[in-house]
Amino acid sequence: MIKTLQGSIDFAESLRGKRATFLLALSTTKTVEIEGITQAGIPELIHLTPTLDSEFLCTGEVRSIDNIATTPKGVPTPALLTRAVHLLRPFGTIELLNLGMATPPKLDYFTCHDFAITPSERIDRGAQIDALGLFEQGVAFGKAYEAPDAYIILGESVPAGTTTASAMVEALGYDAQAMFSSSFREAPNAIKEQTIAQALKGIEGVEDLFERVGAVADNMLLFNAGFILGSSGKSTKIVLAGGTQMAGLLLLVNSIVRYMGGKLESHNLALCTTKWVAEDSQSDIQGLLRLLDFPINAYYSDFDFALSDHPALKLYDEGEAKEGVGAGGALMYGLLNGLSKEAITRQVEQFLRP
Amino acid sequence: MIKTLQGSIDFAESLRGKRATFLLALSTTKTVEIEGITQAGIPELIHLTPTLDSEFLCTGEVRSIDNIATTPKGVPTPALLTRAVHLLRPFGTIELLNLGMATPPKLDYFTCHDFAITPSERIDRGAQIDALGLFEQGVAFGKAYEAPDAYIILGESVPAGTTTASAMVEALGYDAQAMFSSSFREAPNAIKEQTIAQALKGIEGVEDLFERVGAVADNMLLFNAGFILGSSGKSTKIVLAGGTQMAGLLLLVNSIVRYMGGKLESHNLALCTTKWVAEDSQSDIQGLLRLLDFPINAYYSDFDFALSDHPALKLYDEGEAKEGVGAGGALMYGLLNGLSKEAITRQVEQFLRP
Repeated sequence: MIKTLQGSIDFAESLRGKRATFLLALSTTKTVEIEGITQAGIPELIHLTPTLDSEFLCTGEVRSIDNIATTPKGVPTPALLTRAVHLLRPFGTIELLNLGMATPPKLDYFTCHDFAITPSERIDRGAQIDALGLFEQGVAFGKAYEAPDAYIILGESVPAGTTTASAMVEALGYDAQAMFSSSFREAPNAIKEQTIAQALKGIEGVEDLFERVGAVADNMLLFNAGFILGSSGKSTKIVLAGGTQMAGLLLLVNSIVRYMGGKLESHNLALCTTKWVAEDSQSDIQGLLRLLDFPINAYYSDFDFALSDHPALKLYDEGEAKEGVGAGGALMYGLLNGLSKEAITRQVEQFLRP
Repeated sequence: MIKTLQGSIDFAESLRGKRATFLLALSTTKTVEIEGITQAGIPELIHLTPTLDSEFLCTGEVRSIDNIATTPKGVPTPALLTRAVHLLRPFGTIELLNLGMATPPKLDYFTCHDFAITPSERIDRGAQIDALGLFEQGVAFGKAYEAPDAYIILGESVPAGTTTASAMVEALGYDAQAMFSSSFREAPNAIKEQTIAQALKGIEGVEDLFERVGAVADNMLLFNAGFILGSSGKSTKIVLAGGTQMAGLLLLVNSIVRYMGGKLESHNLALCTTKWVAEDSQSDIQGLLRLLDFPINAYYSDFDFALSDHPALKLYDEGEAKEGVGAGGALMYGLLNGLSKEAITRQVEQFLRP
């Protein structure tokens, strides 16, 4: 079942049975080098997570290392959920957006849109993103892009992405730091807060919006703010598949629209996350969405691993991992195409069999 | 399984696995105000049945009152069946035809074609329908409409619609009154007959076909006769999803074609109803279809609630409700897309859980 966080169920229901293009936005921020900031991947190899997630989503294989990405606690990547849905009720198309990966995925036959973007730097030392340039690339792509299916699901794989999103939202002047989620159950608040504080210190006195976010955000946020604005005149619906990072992206869009003195036509835009984010006591996605000046439909997919007793999967229900690789939106897609919780659970379990 | 009432199974089989656009034709006739004439809805609120049926089909929610429409005997709307199929094997698209509703449905994102048609009057006092105008609107819509999917399933929600269809078929000169179905097990023949007799008395001496049916039919019949004729040159197949009302619609088409001295190309047209209508001892859908001058494939979906012991659902098997909201055609769609009787039953039961 799909549950409404904000707005009404109609946006989601109008997509029932329709095929979607799944766009996966991939980027690396060197912020992952700060020890203990994320568990979205294998320590020392976290910069590879977007590469591995995209390989696994597209082919069911991880190619750039030997094994599927799990965290030190053994939580497997949420790409398992997205891939499970894709096996049972395939997306019409999967396309990748290379927004600055450390290593491109080893894939043939899949469209990977390349924009010659490099990984961004650690935000505590200044991310050094050409924010306006990246935003404009996003706008141009949004205007030009024609999805081959009825609508778009936009997911992301950006390790440490909640830290950069949180810093960015602070930099934009929203009072929202405590509302951000983490891939950890017990969010590593001291490290995150310190990193964010350091990042914000670096932009003290900087007035320009793009200059500010260019120092503390990540490529995914800046490019996709452009993508959303570039797409906004079109009739193609876009589902932002993610949690507080995607809410942060919407706040960036909100600030840019304010800055430009415009108004966003958000009727064809929605957000869908997982139950783990929606029910997370340590973050507040609804609080983030309430800060927006425009209305937006937001949902979560009522899926958990209650039907499984696999210890690695139960960690999700205990609050680890929570979201990523568009898991929440992918689950919505599965549910809108007649998949049961049982079927999804069995498929995910199968990936973990030795 | 899909069973053939007339013609061959080939029409149905040629649609196996294909996506359909589900068009739901909605209208209110004030004939429902005659006490005891229908049980298609909540007494006093029967004029809202098309509104509630369309809300529930599209979103799973009833919005214009608190609870799902059940009859005084507790028979739930056949919209449950159509919605169950849509959840398990989604239609490609659902679109609504507002052919004169008392209250429009509260829906966003769903296409509701509006034709500025008002509810028709009680047929015992003269329905006052601009029959030719409505028919011509239907023709124009049929010519212009491009279904976004491989074929069209046309369902209806028109309370008291078997009474108006029966009166209309009489008015057209067919000897068929006893062949019409009812939403009751024990059809309220005295009230229906009296209403129909009164309606026919009002058109004694009237010669013109459109003038006659304009006084005794309903908007759904007149508009859709036009829709069928307007679509008849096209390659898109249309499944009339309904029972004796849809057979009545075909008889109206038959009479109009005779009147105009033409010939209907009916190769792309079929009818599909429920088992409850097909096996109803108090009506005779096959008898009605035999009155047509053109050949037509007609089916029923071999589905009943034998696998359920829910008392409200068993009432269907005892002959209450029978058909509506395109249930027969929706079941055919489900069966043609691999659904089992078991799966449909379990989904319908789930709606009725407290």
